[in-house]
Amino acid sequence: MSWKLDDSHIDDLVRGAALLGTGGGGDPHVGALLVRVAIREYGAVTVLDVDDLDDLDLVIPTAQMGAPTVGAEKLPAGTEAVAAFLKLETHLDSKARATMPIECGGLNSMIPLQVAARLGVPVVDGDGMGRAFPELQMETFSIYGVSGSPLALAGENGETVIINTGEDNVRMERFARAITVQLGGVAHIANYAMTGADVKRTALPGTLATCIRIGLTIRQARDSNSDPIVALAKVLTTTIHGCLRVLQRGKVVDVQRNTDGGFVHGSARITSADGNDELVVHFRNENITAVVNGRLVAVVPDLICVLEADTAEPITTESLRYGQRVTVVGIGTPPSMRTAEALEVFGPAAFGLELDFTPVEELNEEELPTAASRE
Amino acid sequence: MSWKLDDSHIDDLVRGAALLGTGGGGDPHVGALLVRVAIREYGAVTVLDVDDLDDLDLVIPTAQMGAPTVGAEKLPAGTEAVAAFLKLETHLDSKARATMPIECGGLNSMIPLQVAARLGVPVVDGDGMGRAFPELQMETFSIYGVSGSPLALAGENGETVIINTGEDNVRMERFARAITVQLGGVAHIANYAMTGADVKRTALPGTLATCIRIGLTIRQARDSNSDPIVALAKVLTTTIHGCLRVLQRGKVVDVQRNTDGGFVHGSARITSADGNDELVVHFRNENITAVVNGRLVAVVPDLICVLEADTAEPITTESLRYGQRVTVVGIGTPPSMRTAEALEVFGPAAFGLELDFTPVEELNEEELPTAASRE
Repeated sequence: MSWKLDDSHIDDLVRGAALLGTGGGGDPHVGALLVRVAIREYGAVTVLDVDDLDDLDLVIPTAQMGAPTVGAEKLPAGTEAVAAFLKLETHLDSKARATMPIECGGLNSMIPLQVAARLGVPVVDGDGMGRAFPELQMETFSIYGVSGSPLALAGENGETVIINTGEDNVRMERFARAITVQLGGVAHIANYAMTGADVKRTALPGTLATCIRIGLTIRQARDSNSDPIVALAKVLTTTIHGCLRVLQRGKVVDVQRNTDGGFVHGSARITSADGNDELVVHFRNENITAVVNGRLVAVVPDLICVLEADTAEPITTESLRYGQRVTVVGIGTPPSMRTAEALEVFGPAAFGLELDFTPVEELNEEELPTAASRE
Repeated sequence: MSWKLDDSHIDDLVRGAALLGTGGGGDPHVGALLVRVAIREYGAVTVLDVDDLDDLDLVIPTAQMGAPTVGAEKLPAGTEAVAAFLKLETHLDSKARATMPIECGGLNSMIPLQVAARLGVPVVDGDGMGRAFPELQMETFSIYGVSGSPLALAGENGETVIINTGEDNVRMERFARAITVQLGGVAHIANYAMTGADVKRTALPGTLATCIRIGLTIRQARDSNSDPIVALAKVLTTTIHGCLRVLQRGKVVDVQRNTDGGFVHGSARITSADGNDELVVHFRNENITAVVNGRLVAVVPDLICVLEADTAEPITTESLRYGQRVTVVGIGTPPSMRTAEALEVFGPAAFGLELDFTPVEELNEEELPTAASRE
């Protein structure tokens, strides 16, 4: 069933998208500004459920790509993703029924919304990862047989590039990344153009609504002085993400960060209040591993989220700072992202890690903090 | 007036193209193999003079791009440039009257010929530099107002990319180079699609025929035991290139070469037989400066060519070896390539050199060796 997304949803959406961004996905506040302006000027956005699509509808997803550290300084005008969408329509000589996110974390939850507002097309509530990932082939679309090509890329000065690598979505990623680097580290794209039937078959449904519910849950917990982490764990059990585990509460004592080849690489160390436990989180745009005292407690594609201790406000990798009081949580990924073929694309090995994927709920006993345990 | 280019022209063409390649432009022998196969299979190629074109004809030039060191090992199948040509036709939704070289040195004199043979379209006798240059904006087409975009690029596995950077041909070069690096260092392109009127206005005419005449002249001098350098100097006075100066006769004593970012950089030292004079030639795909005992004797865009001492066979930068006996010559560029706007694009400053362009005929007195002076 379709519904209208308006200005009143944006704050919650931003918070939820930042959380599912799992440290990356770009600064959702930048995206929020873009959507807010677009909605004020062009009106609310119609959101379609995946099941609202006809099998033969054409859907053209839109996104920003590049290093979040660059994206935070090189703000889009809002017209670049629109240009990419229109370029791909022209190239395909076909009108799209709707746009859609390719990732539902961070800025890329927002980019399709402002495209939808500006062009008066609906946005489909779903995406290809239920979180953020650093590379374009890391999509359920790709894993389950949708070609990312042709990809249309637009730069800030009106440059356009159309990339067609057939079925090879890794090569598509490499070509698009090379152009993104030439553009200074950020570009806007339209790719994974697909039929409604393919959306129903390959997309993770309802992830936009999940972002809003996550953001709302955290806000309501704050307003009622209850523990937002407890509320978050509860709401996640009703989503495709399933479970939440608290991995560490403590203080950021070190952050290493490096922007290279269109990505941000680095790590952060977080020690517990008593100084006895240290969690190290490694990131490549997004957080990819969490290790406590040398023991793995969460690994990609499960979500590793660093939240402000008091407010559960998500902290992106480029905003991590020495001295922040944080709670680090692990969140499960849906079963379709834990299959052998999915793990091949975005499991530990895809990030150069020599370790097997183990679900966060197996690595950590269920030991939820209650409101009382916060004292 | 149009004429037929067949198998009997290829050896001379290859030699002339290697000479005008001024050290770069890729290995013309690879191109010769491609053309020979294509002509055997599909028949002779019709060559059009620039003036044979109607003003409204569409001409789509074709070329290989990348580092010659890579091109010598990663041989094309012959279908890649055809794919780029057809892709650009499709993108422009228009049929081309002919193809054309963008450079007339090295391999890129040959690539359009095999496209022409395979597709049964004519090739225009002209190009955009009368030599070889390392970058795509280094074209009289670009200098005199033709946009290189849209550019179609094809890879060996059927990948295609369409790049559109509007009037910005430097950015087009950077985008295409970034993709070429992703493809392993070699790609095939179609760009600078233009009207017959623009060809007549901006191209250097007759450069294919010049290549053949240069090759023929060297061959006939060898056959008649006369000095090929003397014969070469004489024939050049009848072309747009005008003059030739002998810069050094001697032996290659050192070669430095590095392949990086899709280019070959390096230098060679050549000492005279008596050991008193040393010429250093620097190259970036092509030879860009020649300095004798610290004094500049030739600089880009004039041509610097290293020839085998006895046969005047051109030696490309990737074939330079310790111990080769060589004659280094400087050859003038036509006046349209020595204007202020032309020098801005491919003069010394464009190669990072802090020196003014001085014509080779001003840097060196006319001191042609006669046949007698060879002793």
